Amino acid sequence: MKITKLSNAISLKRQLEGGNEQQLLTVRQVLQDVRNLGDAALRKYSEMWDGIQIEDFRVSKQEIEEAVLNFDPQLKSDLEEAAANIRYYHEAQKREGYKLPLENGSWLAQRIVPLDAVGLYVPGGLAAYPSSVLMNVIPAQVAGVERIVITSPAGKDGKLPEAVLVAASILGITEIYKVGGAQAIAALAYGTESIAPVDKITGPGNIYVALAKREVFGEVAIDMIAGPSEIAVLADDTAFADEIAADLLSQAEHDALACAVLITTSERLALAVAEEVEKQLRSLPKEEIARKSIENFGQIYIADTMEQAIDAVNSLAPEHLEIVTQHAEEDSLKIRHAGAIFIGRYSSEPVGDYFAGTNHVLPTNSTARFASGLNVDDFIKRTNVVYYTEKTWEQNGPKIARLARMEGLEGHARAVESRGWTKGD
Amino acid sequence: MKITKLSNAISLKRQLEGGNEQQLLTVRQVLQDVRNLGDAALRKYSEMWDGIQIEDFRVSKQEIEEAVLNFDPQLKSDLEEAAANIRYYHEAQKREGYKLPLENGSWLAQRIVPLDAVGLYVPGGLAAYPSSVLMNVIPAQVAGVERIVITSPAGKDGKLPEAVLVAASILGITEIYKVGGAQAIAALAYGTESIAPVDKITGPGNIYVALAKREVFGEVAIDMIAGPSEIAVLADDTAFADEIAADLLSQAEHDALACAVLITTSERLALAVAEEVEKQLRSLPKEEIARKSIENFGQIYIADTMEQAIDAVNSLAPEHLEIVTQHAEEDSLKIRHAGAIFIGRYSSEPVGDYFAGTNHVLPTNSTARFASGLNVDDFIKRTNVVYYTEKTWEQNGPKIARLARMEGLEGHARAVESRGWTKGD
Repeated sequence: MKITKLSNAISLKRQLEGGNEQQLLTVRQVLQDVRNLGDAALRKYSEMWDGIQIEDFRVSKQEIEEAVLNFDPQLKSDLEEAAANIRYYHEAQKREGYKLPLENGSWLAQRIVPLDAVGLYVPGGLAAYPSSVLMNVIPAQVAGVERIVITSPAGKDGKLPEAVLVAASILGITEIYKVGGAQAIAALAYGTESIAPVDKITGPGNIYVALAKREVFGEVAIDMIAGPSEIAVLADDTAFADEIAADLLSQAEHDALACAVLITTSERLALAVAEEVEKQLRSLPKEEIARKSIENFGQIYIADTMEQAIDAVNSLAPEHLEIVTQHAEEDSLKIRHAGAIFIGRYSSEPVGDYFAGTNHVLPTNSTARFASGLNVDDFIKRTNVVYYTEKTWEQNGPKIARLARMEGLEGHARAVESRGWTKGD
Repeated sequence: MKITKLSNAISLKRQLEGGNEQQLLTVRQVLQDVRNLGDAALRKYSEMWDGIQIEDFRVSKQEIEEAVLNFDPQLKSDLEEAAANIRYYHEAQKREGYKLPLENGSWLAQRIVPLDAVGLYVPGGLAAYPSSVLMNVIPAQVAGVERIVITSPAGKDGKLPEAVLVAASILGITEIYKVGGAQAIAALAYGTESIAPVDKITGPGNIYVALAKREVFGEVAIDMIAGPSEIAVLADDTAFADEIAADLLSQAEHDALACAVLITTSERLALAVAEEVEKQLRSLPKEEIARKSIENFGQIYIADTMEQAIDAVNSLAPEHLEIVTQHAEEDSLKIRHAGAIFIGRYSSEPVGDYFAGTNHVLPTNSTARFASGLNVDDFIKRTNVVYYTEKTWEQNGPKIARLARMEGLEGHARAVESRGWTKGD
């Protein structure tokens, strides 16, 4: 791993693949086909791309029950405990609206209303991601969303991974469809004969899924377009090199474009971590991916002072930040920009990926400067409410009419004044 | 105005102009130029498009003071009162994070951090929009944003409208730039020698501004891309036709693409409103615009029952909804989708545009199904924080490692386990 003396502002922004023109045209064709042809288009593309023929997209109750029966009880119990932790953390985000009294019986209010329906895309491929199911579904449930749909590509056997079905079952989700790719996003956005449309689509996916989400954005809401994972570790001489190295690699193994950075005031630690990373890489099953990530985007920065190191972290605005310093909690209070912060030696980042309760859907590529991880607010909307009595109207109508006329909007002024035009009541 | 019997689901979605290819290429060129050349590009485009030569983009303290001195004291007082009302409503949206204790001294937290810097674009042209200044700046101030910048195109006299400067001055905003168009958005996103970049850009603008905001989205955050205004009025036989007609026209006068809809259980009211709209149109200064809007998108629907009418409103998900019925507040509780609701005869919609305190930046084109009006949460972010003690790690580490391995992420499992590898401490 490269070791550099920290001097200037640093950045972890990467130029990310936005999909090429051909991919975009393909996605647009898929969206249009699903919009026009519904289920027939879903069947066509499932056969074309996933090589499977699907009669009924909906996963049956029996399939879910079978998955639960076959599943390792220990893992099921782990998932259940994780789900309970995630629910506990997100319940605290639930909010009420408010009502503010004004004079003369008037009032203003903000009402909080959950979305009617949301769809979660769960990627398929070589692995199953039950943790994605927990992290996306639970905030929506806490928000009070009534209809939550999961869609995911079926394997060659025409089935969804057991782990995904078990995670869904633990949460009580039963509307699950075997559709993947851009066609799944189209079905969620526009609806088909089998799949009613939703109001918001969340969840990660490949480039076709990401492009499709961008295209349907506006028609429905989407979560962020997630970029490759990032970890920054802020550490001083009290940290253990093998632990820091292992944590850096835990993100590097996600993606060759992932980014793992150590910022430390300790030259000793810097050298030791570089050595440990190399050592641990050699026995990592995903060595090839992780090595590419470390070679291309891995960096160790040596800072003169903790203050300088903290400034550097704030300029990175990393998705994940570990703070392994003598006064870790105190240092954490100086961080303005990070998706999630892990404090102290025992808060290894994967703790948050799976189990602690915080959400693992987090802003990447420095967008933590302005964006937040997935949370309950992503599944509600706020409605402003105004109630003016006659007396309040009488007192304020002339002011409102003046302001409207100042902006050249005579119709607005007249609307307010029209209440005085009427029938002597 | 067309009168129809309400039968099927109705929609107010309009196919909106997304800008043509030529406009997009122009905007991309502007963005690139500003990114590469900074202030020089701002000067070039100000001269090219606004026909003005600008030496110093920053509005001087003196210019602001002069504007305040010259301004109508009554209007200034109206703006001050509106600002106080808006602040009162938005203060209730301010939130704290939370900290949740776990067993063994561990804890989870959510921290709320305001954005560092935001930029508000205020459109220029024929009218000045001080209400935009209030509605965009105050939520950011309540959120705790430290740096708030306004940018707006100067007139031929090289000045900004007094009303805009006065509104800014009332709020204590002094960083104001005379730059408009796509080049202003570029300056806010990338920064130039004179203008430091911001983290989020809000505010309406013409098609070039809208396209530029879309293009820089990701680099910085943006608010919604606002569409043409909409009003739906839900009324029964207790409503007065002249008042409803005036309210419909108040939105129709904004834009030929604006949409004004009445849904009523009263045939009498339907006929009378249609007549009144025609009558009032004739004396409206913006008759031409309002007439186009009414002809193209205006509709009166007669519903059999209030229940049917309310269902129709929910399918519209209008930006603004007025409820003028006998039990207006009760009826309002059945509305799930609306940007803002105005209850009762005296809550004419312009009351909220200018004065009541609720925000007038609201979701259009049916996006109230999933989106909210501008609010304090738009200017903060949430950071998840995890603190695990050794004991908590010991108890849960094996579960986390199992979950990671189930997803094929051995590096994640090892990171958690690495805490047990070390030096017998």
